[in-house]
Amino acid sequence: MKICVLGTGIVGRTIAGKLSDLGHEVVIGTRDISTTLNPSSENENGRAFLEWQRNNPKVELATFFSAARESEILFNCISGASTLAALGLAGAQNLAGKILIDLSNPLDFSNGFPPTLSVCNDSSLAEQIQDAFPQTKVVKSLNTMTASLMVEPNLLKDDHNVFVCGNDQSAKASVGVILKEFGWKEINILDLGDITTSRGVEMYLPLWLRLWGSLQNGVINIKVVS
Amino acid sequence: MKICVLGTGIVGRTIAGKLSDLGHEVVIGTRDISTTLNPSSENENGRAFLEWQRNNPKVELATFFSAARESEILFNCISGASTLAALGLAGAQNLAGKILIDLSNPLDFSNGFPPTLSVCNDSSLAEQIQDAFPQTKVVKSLNTMTASLMVEPNLLKDDHNVFVCGNDQSAKASVGVILKEFGWKEINILDLGDITTSRGVEMYLPLWLRLWGSLQNGVINIKVVS
Repeated sequence: MKICVLGTGIVGRTIAGKLSDLGHEVVIGTRDISTTLNPSSENENGRAFLEWQRNNPKVELATFFSAARESEILFNCISGASTLAALGLAGAQNLAGKILIDLSNPLDFSNGFPPTLSVCNDSSLAEQIQDAFPQTKVVKSLNTMTASLMVEPNLLKDDHNVFVCGNDQSAKASVGVILKEFGWKEINILDLGDITTSRGVEMYLPLWLRLWGSLQNGVINIKVVS
Repeated sequence: MKICVLGTGIVGRTIAGKLSDLGHEVVIGTRDISTTLNPSSENENGRAFLEWQRNNPKVELATFFSAARESEILFNCISGASTLAALGLAGAQNLAGKILIDLSNPLDFSNGFPPTLSVCNDSSLAEQIQDAFPQTKVVKSLNTMTASLMVEPNLLKDDHNVFVCGNDQSAKASVGVILKEFGWKEINILDLGDITTSRGVEMYLPLWLRLWGSLQNGVINIKVVS
């Protein structure tokens, strides 16, 4: 079963590298292959990608469309602002019937820091994705923490939680299997409910950003205490 | 030093009762005393208030205006929708120079559950209060949990956090003293920064509501793990 990771930024590289280390067949999708492979001085992501590719030689690089078409399960690691356009390029027919794990956050930095959310309160980016691709099983997860922690929860010695939100129970169960491969304990995986609950995990981002600022540490997460 | 608690609902009663138990002189403020003391069958809050008053005989009942005027520090335990109007009745002159601890959340239930927030993203209710009463030292705190937990953090055996947000460091330090009287460990009191950081703790509410729904338990909180 091939897994597609959409996005070649730090989140996409981290997820794709971990999946490859775990023995999965992985393809990483990009808008434009030549840009991703261009190490020019202006292209910081290109330089980082080439270095990462040397350490992750088994991961195939393909366009959004090809990567999505040849995969059975997909991770959306595109920035929030570019997500819907990127998924459009991936192609609704290539996403239909498949699980899309949405890690993106609708952060809008156009007015500086702190960013605002481009959608929130009465909707969420994950709901917009589910509305735009009704045949896809969208599961929101992992968006509430920094990339390194997503795939290595043991970076923090105390227990902490990852959330899953989505309309399809079997899709959430499949995501749970991958999360456990990443190192998440079953007891720390919290199913919040249907896709509308993703408003909660996306609207948590402003608190997360302030915690990061206050603690001067991005490797943080929350544990639900009850 | 007399402490004023604005609001006779469950949050106001819980805070006022705890402060009184701790030996503070407390006045609880209401919009209309006769309504608060009316135990008619239609007035659930009135019946609950009378029962509470029998158990908390030292707490004085007064109008918002009188309660604010005679106090040095205030807790805003009014619902988010009524907060600005209630503070207007309390009187800007009676709030000037004083610490106002804002526990309210701008929840809007007019479209059912889940509620939306009437202000969020590029502002917050605490910021609106600070803007409307610039001579008052507004400190956002305690809004991220159910009332019983605010004054009895040991209801949960594991550590968990309370946040403080505000522009005035000495006001936040004074609030920290009260939180420690309530039972909060100093290490669990997190100062997020200025009053704009209250967006984070108010926008956390949608996640909190979904955690409550998912865990079927309102006595929950989060611990920041780092």
